[in-house]
Amino acid sequence: MKLMSYNEVFRPRKGKEMGEVKLFWTWSSPYAQRIAWALKLKGVEYETMYEDLGNKSCLLLQYNPIHKKVPVLLHNETPICESLVILEYVDETWNSTARLLPNNPLARANVRFWAKFNDDQVLPSAFQAYVTQGAEQEKAKELTLEKLGIVEKQLIGKKFFGGETVGFLDLVFGWIAVYLEIVEETSSVKLLDKERFPLITAWTENFSQVPVVAETWPDREKLISKYRYMRQYFMSTAAASH
Amino acid sequence: MKLMSYNEVFRPRKGKEMGEVKLFWTWSSPYAQRIAWALKLKGVEYETMYEDLGNKSCLLLQYNPIHKKVPVLLHNETPICESLVILEYVDETWNSTARLLPNNPLARANVRFWAKFNDDQVLPSAFQAYVTQGAEQEKAKELTLEKLGIVEKQLIGKKFFGGETVGFLDLVFGWIAVYLEIVEETSSVKLLDKERFPLITAWTENFSQVPVVAETWPDREKLISKYRYMRQYFMSTAAASH
Repeated sequence: MKLMSYNEVFRPRKGKEMGEVKLFWTWSSPYAQRIAWALKLKGVEYETMYEDLGNKSCLLLQYNPIHKKVPVLLHNETPICESLVILEYVDETWNSTARLLPNNPLARANVRFWAKFNDDQVLPSAFQAYVTQGAEQEKAKELTLEKLGIVEKQLIGKKFFGGETVGFLDLVFGWIAVYLEIVEETSSVKLLDKERFPLITAWTENFSQVPVVAETWPDREKLISKYRYMRQYFMSTAAASH
Repeated sequence: MKLMSYNEVFRPRKGKEMGEVKLFWTWSSPYAQRIAWALKLKGVEYETMYEDLGNKSCLLLQYNPIHKKVPVLLHNETPICESLVILEYVDETWNSTARLLPNNPLARANVRFWAKFNDDQVLPSAFQAYVTQGAEQEKAKELTLEKLGIVEKQLIGKKFFGGETVGFLDLVFGWIAVYLEIVEETSSVKLLDKERFPLITAWTENFSQVPVVAETWPDREKLISKYRYMRQYFMSTAAASH
């Protein structure tokens, strides 16, 4: 992997002046969506490489041989994988615009802690509620509600997780605004109760009005259809492996 | 959580001038060990708070209520949790000495990618080989060998994962040098084959000679005894939950 020099990367440029940027993604992936938001917030021009996860491209397998997953960010032909890693890379590389991570090391540690908590615990438990039914779903639902209760507390006194403006954590938790309602609809499970989670509910509203989020909001009917299909697929795969 | 200002944190000071530092840890934990190495590499004076994980202290539960785990770094009474998050915090806070992460954003992304790969895949698969037996252990062993094969390739042409000197990734993969042989001995499973992994084997030798690593190397007999005990505990817990 050829690395650019520090000075080369850190000259304050953006968009195509910084070299070619391509994003391998799938429109229905919460992990890919957060990178699209970050690039748009930073004003970075990029080319979208659409991936069909049922029939992955040779390029995706070449650029992410370890995980074989989207998103992959390709910057000047060099791939960067894992969505939280990509988010930090985007923030450090296109650093002449507003930063996604705060400057203070303690605040940064706080953001990284909650981002990991989301990816390790909140999102996976909601995914479990999405692909199960009956008693198993009830258990996953309770776990998700418990995790969302912890997330709720992080919004006390704040409009966004980042404070007054959207930051790193808003992009990480962004799936709650866009996809949780789709999970509820397709899996007949109630997760985002307005009474129980008033702060997350208010944040969902605020987040959905952020221009780059509103502009890229996926079509609801298309999402419902895709998520219904994926649910069947995941449930049959799980049944087959038992 | 009271945050210090950016300037306050970034004045180049170290040790006690930067405020009080305490590390909640257990001597046999690979996750806690990497923080001790980092603090010692940075020359940060700290107080060790010994935790008995069979009887966790009120302070540990107070400072890490989400995960209730070591390590926790307490800096001026503010807790930082999750070992990779702590490593980045240590590197950003005590930044007047050699940095653990490289400066180049692409190289940093690379380090973060492999650190996550270790924590999500390599270490958990070795842990599985440690707490199983028979066919289940054989499966975990094969998976661990596969993951170690991927790690091996990251050392081509290098003395350390960080290049000529120890860096972030060496601390993250450090458990391979200290604990893998203990796992092999206590679980009767061969993982670090010298013929198969010559580069990891050479790195293990180099890493063990780094002064802060050599000075803090845990007593082998004590480790064997502790790891034998923990193996019995984990296996009986797993059996009870089936």
